[in-house]
Amino acid sequence: MATRAAILRKACDLASANGLAALTIGSLADALGMSKSGLFAHFGSKEDLQLAVVEAAGAVFHARVVEAAEAEPPGLARLQGLVEAWTRYLEAAPFRGGCFFAAVSSEFDDRPGKVRNRIVELTEGWLALLEQQARRGIAQGEIAESTDAAQLAFELHAFLHEANRAFQLHGRADAFERCRRATRRAFDEVVS
Amino acid sequence: MATRAAILRKACDLASANGLAALTIGSLADALGMSKSGLFAHFGSKEDLQLAVVEAAGAVFHARVVEAAEAEPPGLARLQGLVEAWTRYLEAAPFRGGCFFAAVSSEFDDRPGKVRNRIVELTEGWLALLEQQARRGIAQGEIAESTDAAQLAFELHAFLHEANRAFQLHGRADAFERCRRATRRAFDEVVS
Repeated sequence: MATRAAILRKACDLASANGLAALTIGSLADALGMSKSGLFAHFGSKEDLQLAVVEAAGAVFHARVVEAAEAEPPGLARLQGLVEAWTRYLEAAPFRGGCFFAAVSSEFDDRPGKVRNRIVELTEGWLALLEQQARRGIAQGEIAESTDAAQLAFELHAFLHEANRAFQLHGRADAFERCRRATRRAFDEVVS
Repeated sequence: MATRAAILRKACDLASANGLAALTIGSLADALGMSKSGLFAHFGSKEDLQLAVVEAAGAVFHARVVEAAEAEPPGLARLQGLVEAWTRYLEAAPFRGGCFFAAVSSEFDDRPGKVRNRIVELTEGWLALLEQQARRGIAQGEIAESTDAAQLAFELHAFLHEANRAFQLHGRADAFERCRRATRRAFDEVVS
């Protein structure tokens, strides 16, 4: 019998590739060679399963990006650390379908409910983290005072997503190098 | 009996919101209040239906963005025209789920086959158009010679996608204003 962690790992892979809406207890049981009743013992409903998968993928992102960047002091260094860890995370293609949240965000933006709410909450939180660290960098005099922190966060996040898309959809080998060039230029412009 | 055009319009809406993989002849027949056999007369298989929907959505994008920008002369003006028409297209949320291709791109990046191939071909073509017009602008001396046209296209496309995501997923009212600011800045940097 697979452990809950192993089940969720497989579920994240399947959902990042085939979508979270298509992830049912039946389809996951098939992929794991488990019985549906075995999986029901872990997850009571399709929605509970989807929420658990979102949490598991969120924990991977948190460990690889948010915690990795905490090695840097708050402000500009932490912001640059977040962007670099995020780029490495996408480059390593953590799940079969690339970034789990990029895949499920466009899938769930029109599906109201608990799953969408949690995806929005997590992704908003990570964007807010970029903005907070930009603000902190401004307050510490590391980033030019005239910088709009939310605009900087918008642009950095845009480059990260574009790299994931260019790599996953178009198979562009240079996607992450382009992302690094774009973010470096964005930083060069605002660093005092 | 709905016309083929009306059927495809409805199908684009459904696919942009619920995904193209979930779009079956049965689900579309239900949404239209038509019989499955009536739809089978138009589309022989689920894959034929999906391909027809991709073409229909592509034709809308082509008319609203590519053709709209053809009013401008080739080079920098056409490039700026493409970016502005593309922003307006996203802002007008052409389909219920926002940009059809943003929605289906992440859905199909891991589903090999004719549908994925056509999505890749169309989206590659639009990205290439940005790059071509940037090159033309460089050749005409309107854009600084040192500019990397592919890098500029990567960054402009990133801002467009980010605006769609910020609006569709996070409901950010300022998404398109941020996109316009970001693209204006990108142009300001490279315009000779």
